[in-house]
Amino acid sequence: MKVNNKHYRTIWMDGRSVMMIEQNKLPFSFEIFEATDHHQTCMAIKTMIVRGAGAIGAAAGFAMAQACLEAVDADNYLNYLDEARQRIEATRPTAYNLFHATKLVFDAGQTSPEKAVKTAQQLANENREEMRQIGVEGDALIESGMRIATHCNAGWLAFVDYGSALAPLFEAHRKGKEIFVYADETRPRNQGARLTAWELYNETVPHAIIPDNATAWMMAQGKIDMMITGADRIAANGDTANKIGTLEKAIAAKHFGIPFYIAAPLTTFDFNCKEGADIKIEERNQDEVLWMEGIDKTGQKHQVRVANPGSGAQNPAFDVTPHNLITGYITSEGIIPPNEVAIKRLSDFF
Amino acid sequence: MKVNNKHYRTIWMDGRSVMMIEQNKLPFSFEIFEATDHHQTCMAIKTMIVRGAGAIGAAAGFAMAQACLEAVDADNYLNYLDEARQRIEATRPTAYNLFHATKLVFDAGQTSPEKAVKTAQQLANENREEMRQIGVEGDALIESGMRIATHCNAGWLAFVDYGSALAPLFEAHRKGKEIFVYADETRPRNQGARLTAWELYNETVPHAIIPDNATAWMMAQGKIDMMITGADRIAANGDTANKIGTLEKAIAAKHFGIPFYIAAPLTTFDFNCKEGADIKIEERNQDEVLWMEGIDKTGQKHQVRVANPGSGAQNPAFDVTPHNLITGYITSEGIIPPNEVAIKRLSDFF
Repeated sequence: MKVNNKHYRTIWMDGRSVMMIEQNKLPFSFEIFEATDHHQTCMAIKTMIVRGAGAIGAAAGFAMAQACLEAVDADNYLNYLDEARQRIEATRPTAYNLFHATKLVFDAGQTSPEKAVKTAQQLANENREEMRQIGVEGDALIESGMRIATHCNAGWLAFVDYGSALAPLFEAHRKGKEIFVYADETRPRNQGARLTAWELYNETVPHAIIPDNATAWMMAQGKIDMMITGADRIAANGDTANKIGTLEKAIAAKHFGIPFYIAAPLTTFDFNCKEGADIKIEERNQDEVLWMEGIDKTGQKHQVRVANPGSGAQNPAFDVTPHNLITGYITSEGIIPPNEVAIKRLSDFF
Repeated sequence: MKVNNKHYRTIWMDGRSVMMIEQNKLPFSFEIFEATDHHQTCMAIKTMIVRGAGAIGAAAGFAMAQACLEAVDADNYLNYLDEARQRIEATRPTAYNLFHATKLVFDAGQTSPEKAVKTAQQLANENREEMRQIGVEGDALIESGMRIATHCNAGWLAFVDYGSALAPLFEAHRKGKEIFVYADETRPRNQGARLTAWELYNETVPHAIIPDNATAWMMAQGKIDMMITGADRIAANGDTANKIGTLEKAIAAKHFGIPFYIAAPLTTFDFNCKEGADIKIEERNQDEVLWMEGIDKTGQKHQVRVANPGSGAQNPAFDVTPHNLITGYITSEGIIPPNEVAIKRLSDFF
């Protein structure tokens, strides 16, 4: 997608370096971060310089490829790969794509570093193509005039390009359909207000940010026709782990009879994970809730405490939405209903 | 309730001045704001120096009493009162208590300014006593070991003293029941993270702030046994206007079979308002969503933009929760079930 009229991907490899859009600095400044070894790429995943299911997958693949290149100079090539793999997999334990990409590139690395790099590049390219196709499939659900809500950022910044939940919206807008998008701000990290709004703004899609608290009320007033979110991991039965708040939105959508779709690449489906109860949910630092970052009127950045100084917070980063609250899954292979048999058929594409 | 071991009310009248805790400066600094005439008190209501149903009611009563004192020097005593009343009623059109208090003091002012002041004082004292009783009634619902969630700030700062939703929690804690409170941060103005957490902290009630997005997930995990919120206005059929997000929480509570109570003084019940659809919802400035205020590590205050600079926001300040999502109303006259007949009986107490 475009930034200042130049095309970018979210993440790419250049020689031994992994290059990525510095997402913690968005939307206030646009910078490219260069990770010169796999340790730096791991740090970038941990600190959310790169975030979102698909982009984390690509980053993990690239990090594993970097490790293979580095391992040539190590005492023991295979030991170095093993240790790097564990390091990469420990960065974000909720992101299934991370494990998928790491494994494929690790396996290729058993042959040669060149094969590992090629595999990582191929994974990134495939991700881009798949997200483009999700846009095409999802666009078929959208009629001109629709008001569509989304949660967190499942836009192109969360993938190599195009996005999952936002891909259908970009596609519909590009085709000339008149749509309006409500972006939940998505506390505590405000990915909706910062990243989704930034993407929609840059692609000139009409939109408004709303507080997370307002979604059900907008639905009650008939102002939302459909909701589409992304996913971090989808179990074999369709239960979906995604950004905290997704569950609450899905319950509200069900209550008001509003279609609630999950858009995701195939690697997000974890056929080895039976159901939502098996998904481990990461608890993040309470300071994400108690403090906020932003820029003042002069453009200077500040970290400010936004809560009572003596109080602590709990900060579960994800939740699990049961499949019976989901209308369908928007995938590159079409719209999949929320049942185990239909989901199982997707495994044929691996 | 106590601040630094000294007892305070949220708002009181001292001569011709209305004194109030400056709630916009909490929790970072504790200051008393003095409004020397009814214009300043109106400004204080509008800018939320004083906020919350009961405190706004007391403030409106005091403002009307101030106007009566001022009117003695005006060209036309009754005209001055009329204009002041309109000014006061225009400050926060969603708060029913405001109209109730203004009317009573206005009527008393037809006799004399002294009677107006006495009526306003009496209203504030009655509010304090009623809130104390809500604490006693609500405490009967609470067992030791319970984890209770609340939204926004319906604590003592929202009334003259004690609070509505928090009064039962303070009472239970004072009695030695072991409770744990989850305070929704309550975007966009963070009254939960700032004020509710500040109150709970000062009264040493064990608690944690959670992002608004996390409530349903905490419920799904069985970590919330009950939810209590306040109300800005309750229609004759029980439909309840309260801080944005209350509807979403009530839907989630219903979904998980968790008791959802509304605690409120009797003046919050508007028997002339048939149902929720008749309640006018105020849309507030989008900057409340796009910007946030807090203090940095050195204690300096900053306003920071927390959203994409090119994007706008929608900011409905309240929502309406239908009575069928409400388990009951905690009032000074006991726990009232969510049906029109039971609610109607409350009008006997006027």
